[in-house]
Amino acid sequence: MSDQLSRRSENMRKGIYILPNLFTTGSLFAGFYSMVAGVNGDYRTAAISVFAALICDGLDGKVARATGTTSKFGVEYDSLADLVAFGVAPGLLMYFWALKPFGRLGWLAAFLFVACGALRLARFNVQVETVESKRFVGLPIPAAASMVASTVLFFQHVGWSYYKKPAILVLIYLLAFLMVSNVKYYSFKDPEMIKKQPFGFLVLAVLLFIIIAAEPAIMMFALFCCYILSGPIGYILAWPRRRRLEKALHKGHEAYSDSVKKDD
Amino acid sequence: MSDQLSRRSENMRKGIYILPNLFTTGSLFAGFYSMVAGVNGDYRTAAISVFAALICDGLDGKVARATGTTSKFGVEYDSLADLVAFGVAPGLLMYFWALKPFGRLGWLAAFLFVACGALRLARFNVQVETVESKRFVGLPIPAAASMVASTVLFFQHVGWSYYKKPAILVLIYLLAFLMVSNVKYYSFKDPEMIKKQPFGFLVLAVLLFIIIAAEPAIMMFALFCCYILSGPIGYILAWPRRRRLEKALHKGHEAYSDSVKKDD
Repeated sequence: MSDQLSRRSENMRKGIYILPNLFTTGSLFAGFYSMVAGVNGDYRTAAISVFAALICDGLDGKVARATGTTSKFGVEYDSLADLVAFGVAPGLLMYFWALKPFGRLGWLAAFLFVACGALRLARFNVQVETVESKRFVGLPIPAAASMVASTVLFFQHVGWSYYKKPAILVLIYLLAFLMVSNVKYYSFKDPEMIKKQPFGFLVLAVLLFIIIAAEPAIMMFALFCCYILSGPIGYILAWPRRRRLEKALHKGHEAYSDSVKKDD
Repeated sequence: MSDQLSRRSENMRKGIYILPNLFTTGSLFAGFYSMVAGVNGDYRTAAISVFAALICDGLDGKVARATGTTSKFGVEYDSLADLVAFGVAPGLLMYFWALKPFGRLGWLAAFLFVACGALRLARFNVQVETVESKRFVGLPIPAAASMVASTVLFFQHVGWSYYKKPAILVLIYLLAFLMVSNVKYYSFKDPEMIKKQPFGFLVLAVLLFIIIAAEPAIMMFALFCCYILSGPIGYILAWPRRRRLEKALHKGHEAYSDSVKKDD
């Protein structure tokens, strides 16, 4: 038994499994395809490819956990694929779609998006061993990429007007900042909540599907806007509580210092 | 002392240091700049940017080791920057410079280069904890990127002829294969050899500098060709010895099996 366990932990560390890594390769492929399409001016295909990468990326972790084939190699490979599909591909897409006329300011924004994405991924990889929580620290890079892709699809759908371009520039800087911030985001990794209300969740999923299917470009954009905004809004709402906590901590610290002084 | 040591190991795991990570950011920036230049048709700038990324990438590890600021975060961030600067940037550069006319075959070659680069980096990150050897297993991704960049500079220098394009396609497939192969490459991480012959090495370095400075485009191309070929040539030359070793192992195994049978 112990032998089996140690062999399993050996596999966990060094094993390379086919199935989950194939999904990761799919995600990398979709990211690369998005880049080629984006550069060639086919923005719609590029944006849809980012969503395809998102689906593959969602599946690889699930498949690995479900079949017990999680590996250190898989985690590293997944993180590399993530940077290409959700960092470089959306960055280039945004650059060619909207940021190019801004010159240096434009491609620096695209670079900032890629760099902050890389920092976010590196930080997450260092944290992942200790923290597996209901909340992400900083906007996850797939969510930032989805926001970029849904913005492109939204404006391709409703028609493009020139004055919106500065808004896009601001959006990119904002997304880059949110990725490396300490703003908390809901991770949807709360199995207990789904277990408590399985039927309610199913109804919600069907409802969500119908809403998205009715007007994909508009609804996806609205949904991702809500998710992106949920972080800062939560941060502001939690402000009074955080202040009280800090004050309490400060008081506790002072009381402790006083008691130490008295002891002296 | 033990406290200091444990604090240091804590830093090693979680610390984020400014200086080495700034060099990594520089490498990422050069990689991104190379992409933008390559896509815009400025192939020479794109190739030179890859070399700039190479210098930054060479410095970050050295600085981190010299100042004792190696961190898990740094390793992760470095590996992500490597994929952008030495995987995606040369892949896109090659695609727009030479592979586009091949259609699907062309962009699949570029994608293969990126995917094999990612696999190589993920494998290296998993191995790095146990093996720090004089030889790399598989062509390192910065060497593959340098080969791509020096090929572009070489043909921009000597003039481009159409019939060379299929050769470029073959080169990309070959580089991708060599990265994920088990072919050994000299790592230039042999401090003892430099310590033994410090003066000789300095003379060699000066000589190398003069040779490259005389005709950068041609000499870099020739040098990287030699390095790329050194792997397969070494593999072929080591063939008879490997066969002998395998036979000896096989015989030893048979002798062992026989002795076990006799014991039974």
